[in-house]
Amino acid sequence: MNDKKTKSISFNRGIPAEESLPAGKIAQASFRILKEERNSLLQYSDSMGYLPLREDIANSFTKDSSNNVLVGNGSLHLLDIIANLYLNETEVVIVEKPTYDRAITIFERAGAEVVGVSLKDDGVRLRELKEAIGQHRPKLFYTIPDFQNPTGTTTTREKRKVVADLSEKQGVTIVEDSPYRRLRYRGEDLPTLRSLNPESVIRISSFSKLICPGIRVGWLAGESKTVEKVASYAEDTYITPNLISQGLVYQLIREGWLEERAKELISLYRPRLEATLESLERYFPEANWVDTQGGFFVGLWLPDSTQTKAFYSRAEDNGLTLSGPNGFFPDQEGEGFVRLPFPALSTGEIEEGIKKLAQTWQEI
Amino acid sequence: MNDKKTKSISFNRGIPAEESLPAGKIAQASFRILKEERNSLLQYSDSMGYLPLREDIANSFTKDSSNNVLVGNGSLHLLDIIANLYLNETEVVIVEKPTYDRAITIFERAGAEVVGVSLKDDGVRLRELKEAIGQHRPKLFYTIPDFQNPTGTTTTREKRKVVADLSEKQGVTIVEDSPYRRLRYRGEDLPTLRSLNPESVIRISSFSKLICPGIRVGWLAGESKTVEKVASYAEDTYITPNLISQGLVYQLIREGWLEERAKELISLYRPRLEATLESLERYFPEANWVDTQGGFFVGLWLPDSTQTKAFYSRAEDNGLTLSGPNGFFPDQEGEGFVRLPFPALSTGEIEEGIKKLAQTWQEI
Repeated sequence: MNDKKTKSISFNRGIPAEESLPAGKIAQASFRILKEERNSLLQYSDSMGYLPLREDIANSFTKDSSNNVLVGNGSLHLLDIIANLYLNETEVVIVEKPTYDRAITIFERAGAEVVGVSLKDDGVRLRELKEAIGQHRPKLFYTIPDFQNPTGTTTTREKRKVVADLSEKQGVTIVEDSPYRRLRYRGEDLPTLRSLNPESVIRISSFSKLICPGIRVGWLAGESKTVEKVASYAEDTYITPNLISQGLVYQLIREGWLEERAKELISLYRPRLEATLESLERYFPEANWVDTQGGFFVGLWLPDSTQTKAFYSRAEDNGLTLSGPNGFFPDQEGEGFVRLPFPALSTGEIEEGIKKLAQTWQEI
Repeated sequence: MNDKKTKSISFNRGIPAEESLPAGKIAQASFRILKEERNSLLQYSDSMGYLPLREDIANSFTKDSSNNVLVGNGSLHLLDIIANLYLNETEVVIVEKPTYDRAITIFERAGAEVVGVSLKDDGVRLRELKEAIGQHRPKLFYTIPDFQNPTGTTTTREKRKVVADLSEKQGVTIVEDSPYRRLRYRGEDLPTLRSLNPESVIRISSFSKLICPGIRVGWLAGESKTVEKVASYAEDTYITPNLISQGLVYQLIREGWLEERAKELISLYRPRLEATLESLERYFPEANWVDTQGGFFVGLWLPDSTQTKAFYSRAEDNGLTLSGPNGFFPDQEGEGFVRLPFPALSTGEIEEGIKKLAQTWQEI
């Protein structure tokens, strides 16, 4: 405990900036769509979701037919349904190491063994992936190719092709999680895994990062047989998803607001990413980090992983709130890793926080 | 196929009357609460749900503390979470026979054996319940004491006491499902099982019948330790429930609208229940039915259960849409049973439909 504690900076959760939350716009759009659509959003309905929104997603996001798209109560719950449909105590799922902590929890809860494959700066280590597939015969490979959580890594075009081909040849279904895809601050869009190999890939995504988390609307795109299975499981779980929120998203798309919104968020978050990368370069050059191009996170690797515990403990004393790293690693071996979510901090807080990180490293 | 088919009457799903859906009111209330609450409904938050609504439910519905109340995305999903927490391949759950078909699906999906205990006109057959508990050592007893789905049965005060005591002595957790409780058209409220024995009872309910299904807000009341376990499972499944809908329910309660709404629905549905019971008396006196006091259903027993298949087949030819009865019975032995949901039909349609039911019986 010292006086630095008074000015706490939180690099903890990956959440949108408070000032970006569009309450007024959502109030207005929900009023409009409820007045117009009336009963169709209020009654029990199709567990696939609100058809006009499924059509919009198919047209604008996935280039699929609406039969390939299901909309549910957030993408994490859709991942849980996929886990329950594909996995059990005898199955293995491969994930990137590190990966989204809540995905690991979901796969383990479904009974599966979760095997990690190391993530390099350009995507997973391919030789390790091939070996893991050969050894474990996994049912699923879970990957976040765009601006990964927790590292910020973007899988290159070449690696995407190899991964898509490999999974098809080996009969492994890929779950492509893409919540951050529309938030690219520099560089060019790369093809989704699903566009490279529709038959082997289930893509999930959400409007939590683009509109707001409270809206709880996520979607899934896959082969129609897969989508039907998910729809049947969803119906047995919640009958109908929250259609009021789905109508609201549809209204925001129809008004052209969502496109504007993506641009605004990119303008808001790009300087925050730049501040993160520049501050790391300036204050903490002895560390390694991912040259993130979009999304919410920069992954940082400490210069000496044996000092991880001491670093986290001292960081807390210095008024920094961090996510303990072990949850992102299926084997709990989070040594040396620090996740830095930047969207909810001002550039000043980011600089101050990274200065403190570097200082913490000096102190231990 | 004959000309009767042109005028189809649906006694199929238990859904609210289309003309009762309050789209205008919901549009207005959601506008108001979003303008006022702004960011607290739009960000990730507590998996227990929106605190002001939890407090309202605790005060007005359950006489609990808000620590005993969790609000989620509909009561069926909460039942699914309970099933996943309590049941597995080695566990047994006891249900009323017949019972809500989707509950059976959820328990079976969790791997449990589902054992039915016969339902009489005053509640479950007690001797059979005792024997089943002794024989199977079940983990849960799932019951719908008020205006049961699919029969309309209300468990008497005396039986509630016996059931609550029995479950405590035998260490069986009761899941009390009460979605219809506020829709009583005659008679007096009876105590909930949870009020008789808070330690052994988890109560679930929903706003689907009172406001509308599309809102997808359900709640659970139980001991705080139980609620915490459900909250943890819920967080791992969907992080935060749909808070926009929860804020909307809170607003509708705060404006005093929900109380008015219950009265209006009772005025709308009471004549429909009366038309159902009177038409059965007039056109189909040789059948047996439950003297329903509230909710959505009257359960009908055909005069001769061996004719069930012939009856359902002929009913379809005669332009009647019915739910096949087997799904309501854990052993699929639905012989002789017909569920009659009445809220979504006019009194004229009800009379016409029951006339056709009786005519169908004459024809086979």
